[in-house]
This record gives sequence, structure tokens and C-alpha cells, in this order.
Amino acid sequence: MAKKRTDDEEPANPRRLAEMLRVGPGFDLATVETSATPGFLAGRAAGETALAAGAQTLFGLQERLFAAGFTGAGNDRLLLVIQGMDTSGKGGIVRHVVGSVDPQGVRHTAFKAPTAQELAHDFLWRVRPRVPGPGLIGVFDRSHYEDVLIVRVHDLVPRAEWEQRYDAINAFEAELAGQGTTMVKVMLHISPAEQLRRLEKRLYRPDKYWKYATSDLDEHAFWDGYQEAYQAALTRCSTSSAPWYVVPADKKWYARWAVQSLLIGALAQVDPQWPAAGFDVDRERARLAALLATRTR
Amino acid sequence: MAKKRTDDEEPANPRRLAEMLRVGPGFDLATVETSATPGFLAGRAAGETALAAGAQTLFGLQERLFAAGFTGAGNDRLLLVIQGMDTSGKGGIVRHVVGSVDPQGVRHTAFKAPTAQELAHDFLWRVRPRVPGPGLIGVFDRSHYEDVLIVRVHDLVPRAEWEQRYDAINAFEAELAGQGTTMVKVMLHISPAEQLRRLEKRLYRPDKYWKYATSDLDEHAFWDGYQEAYQAALTRCSTSSAPWYVVPADKKWYARWAVQSLLIGALAQVDPQWPAAGFDVDRERARLAALLATRTR
Repeated sequence: MAKKRTDDEEPANPRRLAEMLRVGPGFDLATVETSATPGFLAGRAAGETALAAGAQTLFGLQERLFAAGFTGAGNDRLLLVIQGMDTSGKGGIVRHVVGSVDPQGVRHTAFKAPTAQELAHDFLWRVRPRVPGPGLIGVFDRSHYEDVLIVRVHDLVPRAEWEQRYDAINAFEAELAGQGTTMVKVMLHISPAEQLRRLEKRLYRPDKYWKYATSDLDEHAFWDGYQEAYQAALTRCSTSSAPWYVVPADKKWYARWAVQSLLIGALAQVDPQWPAAGFDVDRERARLAALLATRTR
Repeated sequence: MAKKRTDDEEPANPRRLAEMLRVGPGFDLATVETSATPGFLAGRAAGETALAAGAQTLFGLQERLFAAGFTGAGNDRLLLVIQGMDTSGKGGIVRHVVGSVDPQGVRHTAFKAPTAQELAHDFLWRVRPRVPGPGLIGVFDRSHYEDVLIVRVHDLVPRAEWEQRYDAINAFEAELAGQGTTMVKVMLHISPAEQLRRLEKRLYRPDKYWKYATSDLDEHAFWDGYQEAYQAALTRCSTSSAPWYVVPADKKWYARWAVQSLLIGALAQVDPQWPAAGFDVDRERARLAALLATRTR
């Protein structure tokens, strides 16, 4: 007799998963288990199968979002913000989750250390031009949150200045939400030991050397400071219109499935529709039939 | 006894395919068979299998290109220019060929009808900021060639002006090549009857209405003018550093395989290498081992 499956063994649906991962009142980052797989207890193989199936669902939702934006019928757009410590798998989310949708509809930005020109402006100056337009999925690999993370940890600006940024971010994101942007902000959460194991891999594979920098280990020493800065950003900037989700990410397959599922849930809530014809369908069919008769005669 | 395969039944390798599709001296667009599948005679199912296998090859080459550009070790970049009549499958190339590589390394631009601001500048003004940087694959869905195609067909600027543009384009592309840009310019070539059949599909599927515009049939009437404009652009702007390839595109599976193969061939010629370590590998391994011992104790 087959083992009876319990409810807990069924993957959570996107809405339920969002509730499980969402940063709400009383959230404490230190209590989140980085190697857990909440909402998906069936293991890696099943997770990879679910990811492949979800890719179709996400592709279909994105196509409708894009179509609505393209014709002007819809004003919705989606912004995925990906944050996490070095090696937490941000690039893998781009490749394995974002990579399954139509590149035409994706606007990807990897934010690096700001240039001299960018530093001469307000911290949101370089971010605003990169927000997605109607129908598009914007992807921020790192984001304006670095301005309250690395900046806070290393005191790159005075405390009085970074302290103001939480409110500035909330105002900015509320503005985006008001324009029709659905935000999905994810922090990929790994343990310090897992980070070291991933850095180790990069040091023993010549095809991974390019991903390694000596500053990675220097930064590792600031782990606790980063966790504190994340705790502040997550709790101060998780709003109803722009919630934060903390995704346990020691298991890459889980993090990918979870982020995909959050995106599917967000787009399902937007529920973009195929635009109605902006022309007289019967008339165009008749015009076309007449031409086709000539061309294929 | 199994049927003996002839050489013709083996898919052409990328270099051989490039020779077959390349626009050279004496090229005549009118003689190109739009439903042919040069270099791949084994049919659709085999073509789709080859596309899936090629995706891995392309992904691997792109990763090395990106790594070299990321570290500054390499200066190479690739620019794919996609042109073709409406419905020729430009979007499908983006989805099914470009879609298989890492979105982080792709810079995609769909050029639309120019805005008032763009029209106030030279025709290359809006194109220059969109060329790919080191390590990136730029994708132009339509391009500066529209300025000698639709512009020529409809006399949107005086003849004396568009006549100068062929030289301007050649100078621009030579400049890009000089900077380390490998160009792959493809024209997806369909028959007028195939275009009508594809438009017909859009008129009978409500989920495709959004891709249809009444101007599509208006433009169809200018088919011969467009072919003439393509013939001029293809022959005047197929240079050794920026060749044009004409890809028969009545069969979508073939066009996708062919463009993928041209990209693989171009990147294989660039032959990007994994960057050497920019740090003392042994020293970093020792630092890491010490930290790892602490963290996992």
C-alpha cells in the first residue's frame, strides 16, 4: 500500500506560500532557517519538476501582461527586486526563473557600485529610469536597498542620511504601486557557512574564478552587520503595496521554485487579459481573404 | 538494412551554414526560396531536437563571453540584428533562440517608429546607446536598417538623404567591428502568401488580436517595394566585418535553428576564454579554509 500523503507534503499554492514567506509584524530574520523549504516538502527532484511546470504558467501570464501593455489596454507592470548576500543565488534566479519568460518583456538591471556621476545625485536617481513600463517585468539584481545595506554597514554616508532613506524608499515604492506596479521583493537568505562553501567552489573551479573577488571574504567578516541591516530594511520597508519575502536559499532548487511561485501568484492577482481587437474583425477578415485568394491563386 | 544517409542529410556545421546563407557578390533576393531549409534537410522534428541541443552550446559560449567582459579580460561583444517583413518571426527568434541564454548577458531593443525627439536627430542617434558593451549580446529587433527600408519605400525623407545612409551604416558598423563587436545580421525571408496566412491566424485567434494592426494589410500592398529596398540594403551593406545572412523563414523551426547556428558559429570564432584568476588562488583558499573551520565547527 502506498504511503499516504499528508497535506504538508503538497506544495503550497502561490497565495499560501506568499503568506508563509512574507515579512509581517514581529518578523525576526535570525529565526528564519536558511536550509528549510517551507511550502515544499517533497524534495529536490519534485522541486525541479515543479519549476519546469511553473515556467509554462509564468510564460503564459507574462504574455498576457505584455500584450495588454503593448496595446495600451493595460497599465500593469511587475517589478522583481532580488537581494541577498554574495553567492545567495541572485544570478541563478535570473537565469532559471526570469530566463523562462520572453526576453522581449523583461527589463533587467544589475546594480553595481555607483559611479561618480550616480553618487553626485540622490540615491534613487539611477533607479527611476530602470523601473518597468506597462506590460514589462522589471528585474533588479540588487537595488536601491543597497543604499541601506552596504552603505549602512560601512557608514558610506552619515547615519542621519541613510536613516532617512527608509521613508524615501517607502514613498518611492508607493508611487510605483500607484502607477500600476506590482512589486515582489525577495531576500535570498543563506547561512554564513553556506556562503563559505559556495565561495570555496569558486576557488576550486577555474571556470568560476571570474565570480570570485578577494573582497568577498573581507565582506564575510561583516556578516552580523549585514543581518542587522537586512532586519531593519525588511521590517521598515515591508508594506502592503510592496511586501518583502524572505526565501530560505541554502537549497537553490527551493529558492528558484519559491520565487517563481511568488511571481506566478503576483501575476495571477493582476490577472492580465488579452486585449480586445482594436479593429473591425469581420472587415479585416474579408480584406485578408480577398488578398489571400490573389496571392495563392 | 538502414537507409544510408547522404552527406546532404547531415545538418551543415555553423561555418558551412554561414557560407550558404551569406549575402555575397551577385546576390539576388528574388531567387531565394523562402520555404527551403538549406543546410538542414532532416525535417522539423530533427530541427527542434537540434535547436534544444544547440541551446546548451550557445549558453556555454555566452557564459564565457560574459565572464570575459565582466572581469575586463575580454573586450568582445556580439550584436544580432533581426530584420524581416511583418510576421516573419522576429519575436520568435528572440523567444526561442535568444531566450535560451542568460538574461543577464542580453541587451534587447525593439526599435519602434521613431519618436519626435528621435526624428530631430540623425537616424543613428537612438541606435548608438543601445549597442552592447563588453561581454554582452545585443539584440536589435528591427534596427537602423528601417531607415533604408520603410523610409525608402514610403519616401519618409528625400531620396538624397536615404541614399547617403548606406555609407553611413557601413561606417557605423565598421566602427563597431573595430571596437570588438561581432555582428550577425539576419533577414528572415518569407513569401507574401505566407505572410497572409500568418496574419489570418492572428485574425482568428482572440489571443493573437493584439499582434494585428490594420496597417499590416496596407503595408502588404507595398511588398515589391520592400523587396527592392531589402535587396539594396542587403547588397550594399553586407561587408566582411558585418555580413548579412538571408534566412528562409516560411518554416519557423528552420529559421530558429539557422539563426542559432549562425550565433554559435560567430561566438565559436570569437572563442572567449575563462578569465584567469585576478588574485592569489592559494592564498584565498587558505583564508577560506580558516574561516570555514570556524563557521562549521
